[in-house]
Amino acid sequence: MSAVTLNEWRARIRTELDSVVDFWLKYSHDTVHGGFFTCLGKDGTVYDELKYVWLQGRQVWMYCRLYRTMDRFHRPDILEAAKAGGSFLRKYARVSGSGSNPWKCAFCLTRDGRAVKIQRTIFSECFYIMAMDELSRVTEDKDMQLEAEQMMEQLIFWVREDSSGLGRPQLPGDVPTNSMAVPMMLLCLVQQLTEGRGPEAELKYKELSSWCVEQILQHVQRDGTAILENVSVEGGEIPGCQGRLQNPGHALEAGWFLLQVSAQQGDGELQQTAINKFVELPYECGWDKEHGGLLYFLDVDGHCPTQLEWSMKLWWPHCEALIAFLMAYKQTKRPELLQRFSQLYEYTFSHFPDPEGGEWFGYLTQAGKVALDFKGGPFKGLFHVPRCLYMCERLLDELLANDE
Amino acid sequence: MSAVTLNEWRARIRTELDSVVDFWLKYSHDTVHGGFFTCLGKDGTVYDELKYVWLQGRQVWMYCRLYRTMDRFHRPDILEAAKAGGSFLRKYARVSGSGSNPWKCAFCLTRDGRAVKIQRTIFSECFYIMAMDELSRVTEDKDMQLEAEQMMEQLIFWVREDSSGLGRPQLPGDVPTNSMAVPMMLLCLVQQLTEGRGPEAELKYKELSSWCVEQILQHVQRDGTAILENVSVEGGEIPGCQGRLQNPGHALEAGWFLLQVSAQQGDGELQQTAINKFVELPYECGWDKEHGGLLYFLDVDGHCPTQLEWSMKLWWPHCEALIAFLMAYKQTKRPELLQRFSQLYEYTFSHFPDPEGGEWFGYLTQAGKVALDFKGGPFKGLFHVPRCLYMCERLLDELLANDE
Repeated sequence: MSAVTLNEWRARIRTELDSVVDFWLKYSHDTVHGGFFTCLGKDGTVYDELKYVWLQGRQVWMYCRLYRTMDRFHRPDILEAAKAGGSFLRKYARVSGSGSNPWKCAFCLTRDGRAVKIQRTIFSECFYIMAMDELSRVTEDKDMQLEAEQMMEQLIFWVREDSSGLGRPQLPGDVPTNSMAVPMMLLCLVQQLTEGRGPEAELKYKELSSWCVEQILQHVQRDGTAILENVSVEGGEIPGCQGRLQNPGHALEAGWFLLQVSAQQGDGELQQTAINKFVELPYECGWDKEHGGLLYFLDVDGHCPTQLEWSMKLWWPHCEALIAFLMAYKQTKRPELLQRFSQLYEYTFSHFPDPEGGEWFGYLTQAGKVALDFKGGPFKGLFHVPRCLYMCERLLDELLANDE
Repeated sequence: MSAVTLNEWRARIRTELDSVVDFWLKYSHDTVHGGFFTCLGKDGTVYDELKYVWLQGRQVWMYCRLYRTMDRFHRPDILEAAKAGGSFLRKYARVSGSGSNPWKCAFCLTRDGRAVKIQRTIFSECFYIMAMDELSRVTEDKDMQLEAEQMMEQLIFWVREDSSGLGRPQLPGDVPTNSMAVPMMLLCLVQQLTEGRGPEAELKYKELSSWCVEQILQHVQRDGTAILENVSVEGGEIPGCQGRLQNPGHALEAGWFLLQVSAQQGDGELQQTAINKFVELPYECGWDKEHGGLLYFLDVDGHCPTQLEWSMKLWWPHCEALIAFLMAYKQTKRPELLQRFSQLYEYTFSHFPDPEGGEWFGYLTQAGKVALDFKGGPFKGLFHVPRCLYMCERLLDELLANDE
């Protein structure tokens, strides 16, 4: 692949990132109640006013990250939007009320901030922490940073000590599992909370970081031939659909999380495992040889998954795959990794972006036709697309700089 | 439509019913732990051993109903299977444990009956009641019938008095709604508990029956031009996706429930509303003019639904539509209703049954290709297909008898 190609990719990715950020700046801000609308139709129209906390947190994080690390996004409008989103979150996301844990966040709020739904999981809290930590870096608000760290302590307690506070009844048939999402999110938070904060912060989360990596590696199963989404807490396979489930996009996301850790720690063995098992393997199993694109779910034994959307092509696995392959290439310069990136790039950019209405479609049929035409929804906000474009732009910057 | 056509339909439907029941008799019985496997692959192979309580209850109900009302199913093997399923349910479905309500049922059990998951809704209990009442009719077990009625009292309390016992936290933004499923299920249970039990039983549930009908009729919205799946408890429209959601298959199912009530009560006005609003209207809005078949979800204002499966063709809406149109035709003899039945019949029988492996596929793409190839799953058991075939066979029997 020539430097010309890398340059072309970078140019397209830059344009796309600018345009995606513009879309959300233009359509998603609620200037009346604060926070962001995330249910945005094909042309940006708000079709539902509910405010999903995951997406509020992610949007604050993304704005701050762009503001803080990319010159062309270091703009007052982006800072103001991030701060407004942060205020909304701080005011409303944590569910107060008798008997409830003061750190528990809602999953979904009304436009004016009243809790609609609480999930009995840790993910709203994860995105709250990401938002607060990143915002505190921009605003230098120490209280906010402290709040993020305190919530992190609660999260660690829920995950590693006692999950009963999450509200899920303990049932005799409900065996605890190691679900990929949990160590992945905690590892992501460790990266967030320690980045650039020096050896003391790193030391504080060192043991947790190793634990997360270990937990993620437990998902390598079947003599290293498969990544399974759910395993037992002892790291064994669990029976039934849940145990056989594969989510290639998720494995690829874990892949680049592990690549980041391996680079920081200069851990060549981890790098190799990350690339072989969490980047190349999920691609092999998830790539649809007939229609192209990554399938959403698979069953390792070839049964049909029970998720109705298993064969659809979603935007986010493609975003994660682009990051994973480009990062793997940057670290190793193995040409076949760039070849895969190129293939993923072709599929992604010819299927997901909407040149008419802006932003990307999120949900395609197996054959690659747009199945749901909105740009934002309960699970799609300003996050996977811009994070992917941001990461890829920076990786290409580094690759091109090294080539010079 | 000639009597020849009706006869042909009936012959096909009879054959299909026999074959579907055989499939479940052959593949679904757990002779070790009792109860039924419901995750059955294309060829009947068990691909997951979890036991979903809705489907356990529905299978007991269906076996008993066939045993009790159709000569050719009045067989000892069917009775024994129903009893074994009933024992499993009675032994394991109700979740015991400190602090839990003794009537609350699990959603899902392990193969040997340990609770895996509890839903904070009433539906496991609904299917438990259906199973117990129908089984008690076959076995003449008065205790069992009493248990069904007592659980029904608890259900009515949860729905009409105080739902806090279901375990959902009361949140300021979570406004109570009238969701179509609730009055539909209660009306179905009233029909179940009163059938053939005389005026005393009817009197006992008379007010509840009227309330259910009223609650269902509240879903007629937009000056009678749309059935909406969720409305406010005052019967008004609610904002956002939830308020605009249409589920044509569900409306059609409500349609034939209402037609049964209207026939029992000789209520011509209700009959007309049922046909115009709950049978013809959902068909008009839900029928896919490009590919044929009924869409799963729609948004009344034409936005894209957020459910990823909105454009798929599921087996059960087609089952409900077949019953609804044939019953509407039987009651009114309006030829256009039989014409629609014929169209639905063509689509259904040319797309869903699997002549090779037996039973029906449940989930097709919008274009009508099999998307998930299993015969049973977490939400597909021995219920919608055989209930449809059973109801249609009986309706055709009556139509053909009257023609003679």
